[in-house]
Amino acid sequence: MPIFGLIEYEQASPAARAVFDDIMLTRKVDRINNFWKALANHPPTLARIWENVKQVMGPTRLDALTKEMIYVAVSATNNCEYCLHSHIASARKLGMDDEMLSEVLAVAGLANETNRLANGYRVPVDEAFR
Amino acid sequence: MPIFGLIEYEQASPAARAVFDDIMLTRKVDRINNFWKALANHPPTLARIWENVKQVMGPTRLDALTKEMIYVAVSATNNCEYCLHSHIASARKLGMDDEMLSEVLAVAGLANETNRLANGYRVPVDEAFR
Amino acid sequence: MPIFGLIEYEQASPAARAVFDDIMLTRKVDRINNFWKALANHPPTLARIWENVKQVMGPTRLDALTKEMIYVAVSATNNCEYCLHSHIASARKLGMDDEMLSEVLAVAGLANETNRLANGYRVPVDEAFR
Amino acid sequence: MPIFGLIEYEQASPAARAVFDDIMLTRKVDRINNFWKALANHPPTLARIWENVKQVMGPTRLDALTKEMIYVAVSATNNCEYCLHSHIASARKLGMDDEMLSEVLAVAGLANETNRLANGYRVPVDEAFR
Amino acid sequence: MPIFGLIEYEQASPAARAVFDDIMLTRKVDRINNFWKALANHPPTLARIWENVKQVMGPTRLDALTKEMIYVAVSATNNCEYCLHSHIASARKLGMDDEMLSEVLAVAGLANETNRLANGYRVPVDEAFR
Amino acid sequence: MPIFGLIEYEQASPAARAVFDDIMLTRKVDRINNFWKALANHPPTLARIWENVKQVMGPTRLDALTKEMIYVAVSATNNCEYCLHSHIASARKLGMDDEMLSEVLAVAGLANETNRLANGYRVPVDEAFR
Repeated sequence: MPIFGLIEYEQASPAARAVFDDIMLTRKVDRINNFWKALANHPPTLARIWENVKQVMGPTRLDALTKEMIYVAVSATNNCEYCLHSHIASARKLGMDDEMLSEVLAVAGLANETNRLANGYRVPVDEAFR
Repeated sequence: MPIFGLIEYEQASPAARAVFDDIMLTRKVDRINNFWKALANHPPTLARIWENVKQVMGPTRLDALTKEMIYVAVSATNNCEYCLHSHIASARKLGMDDEMLSEVLAVAGLANETNRLANGYRVPVDEAFR
Repeated sequence: MPIFGLIEYEQASPAARAVFDDIMLTRKVDRINNFWKALANHPPTLARIWENVKQVMGPTRLDALTKEMIYVAVSATNNCEYCLHSHIASARKLGMDDEMLSEVLAVAGLANETNRLANGYRVPVDEAFR
Repeated sequence: MPIFGLIEYEQASPAARAVFDDIMLTRKVDRINNFWKALANHPPTLARIWENVKQVMGPTRLDALTKEMIYVAVSATNNCEYCLHSHIASARKLGMDDEMLSEVLAVAGLANETNRLANGYRVPVDEAFR
Repeated sequence: MPIFGLIEYEQASPAARAVFDDIMLTRKVDRINNFWKALANHPPTLARIWENVKQVMGPTRLDALTKEMIYVAVSATNNCEYCLHSHIASARKLGMDDEMLSEVLAVAGLANETNRLANGYRVPVDEAFR
Repeated sequence: MPIFGLIEYEQASPAARAVFDDIMLTRKVDRINNFWKALANHPPTLARIWENVKQVMGPTRLDALTKEMIYVAVSATNNCEYCLHSHIASARKLGMDDEMLSEVLAVAGLANETNRLANGYRVPVDEAFR
């Protein structure tokens, strides 16, 4: 049950529709995901987050697949169901297979364990790491 | 301030020392990080976690650098200072430069933001993602 | 699927019923939310949490609406679906409109991002802030 | 660096001093921990939290040591340095030795790992568990 | 909606089947929980996590029930629905009744509150705790 | 110990310097906080986060003080020491006194407790809230 309704293209404000258009153009797709339809309830947030996603997830030094896998690992850590599904879908399009997804989840899981052990034992940072 | 003292090689029990030896052999290094010295207070945990790290972080489908960067992103999410320093150090040895580290942190940061927006709006998962 | 059944007024123990009565009297409502019905499985927790909520959320220096919006921001951060729905409902009764809710979620989202960047870069606290 | 100064017994307001007295009487100690000195900046919170701690951590069905170990596990999960130190100290007084502490941290660590795997794989709850 | 399908015994690879056999033998049960069926999509993770669970949750210094209750407290903290259901089921088999479960959740809840107060006030660790 | 050095105005790249100038102009201050000096190691992130902060924290429907207090509550939840100090400083400038800060932390603390109780009991959302 969403907190806000999903705004379809037809009902969207001109500002939201401009973002929808840019999303479809940039991603070369002809449909809009629910995340953006939900944010369209607040066009400034819709535009801001889309600009962020375009910049951070767009072509830079790290390849797009690595970024999507990092996204999946953080989303598993935070238990964001929507984000898991959407970023796993994106990563699969970029070439992630089942084996790779399982490895991403294994690293994320292990990091969550050792994070708690390092914090629980209050391990001092090694001089060599500073 | 650690909760337990750090166990140096000389004081370590035979079980802990065997793990220390395997760490140095596997990683081709001649010193042991504080994390392992802290875990040496409980040899079964030391041996268990080292086996996990060897399996998960060792050579598999995903390359070692990608795994270390995922580790950094999760550690930033959980605010594990020790893990950040140690896994950033490992990733740097594998070729991560400042630009790449900044991008890892940028993706982790953005994922933490959109995770909360997706959860806050309770966005329903798109049929296309299932 | 709840872990415990919901305890309705009729089945509630005298101790739980006394809390239910106080909730309805204090809030001038004639129904009890599921959260309290679930806690009624353990009357000491029911009474304790209600006393806490009455004190913290009751009239003090910060106005009630500000408090409810803080509650929403924390609940989005922790992904508590129940808490999001119930505190958004409370905040709406106190005057929060859609624009304001979107802004609360935007601040919460951004804070989650910059929290990870500040932690990830291990930014030292400025002398001026101490 | 604390956000607020620590309020010593001599400077404390009558309301805060009454709580300090009750803490020392209840716990049969003659000093007050920093946590309570910090909360003394806001006497209603000091009194409220002390009442909660007395009720939840006091003698009930679960023994005091089990409760303290649960507290340690949650504090390691949330990375609360103060809470780790104070509840480890309390648990040690109640009989927790180094072996037991290491086991608490091992369970907490493993739970954090499997929590992420269960969430990451979106494992459906077994009928048998409902 | 799972991310991966659940692997039944009949479809499982020999490596996964060996783990399934060991789970049923060790636990003296004749069915496999969904968590393991999901991990069977990646046999190395299935085998690794099962070895961890066997070691950490098996008979050691802390009794099995205490460990399961710690697991429940961490899972409530992280909001892992699956883990809550499965570890509450395990704890019940070992003797946890409704009263005890409510107390576990009360300690976990209170710890989450005081963790934030200790961190929010940046309370310095008492000399006596070091 | 920062992961990156802090970039002072004099060493900053033209792109970073332009953001520094805009920060000082917008905020009518003549110094730059460490957070921005750390981000200046990666000018695209520096510019992006500043644009986000300007939009989200700037004058909109919610007043600036409410936003800063929400920021503090989320930062206490995530244990971001830097963010706590910097946003408490900002909120104080906008009129938050000690009483109000204590109330913000009290609401954040309580929300973290009830979030875990609602999740731990798996309380179903009331029809009335949907």
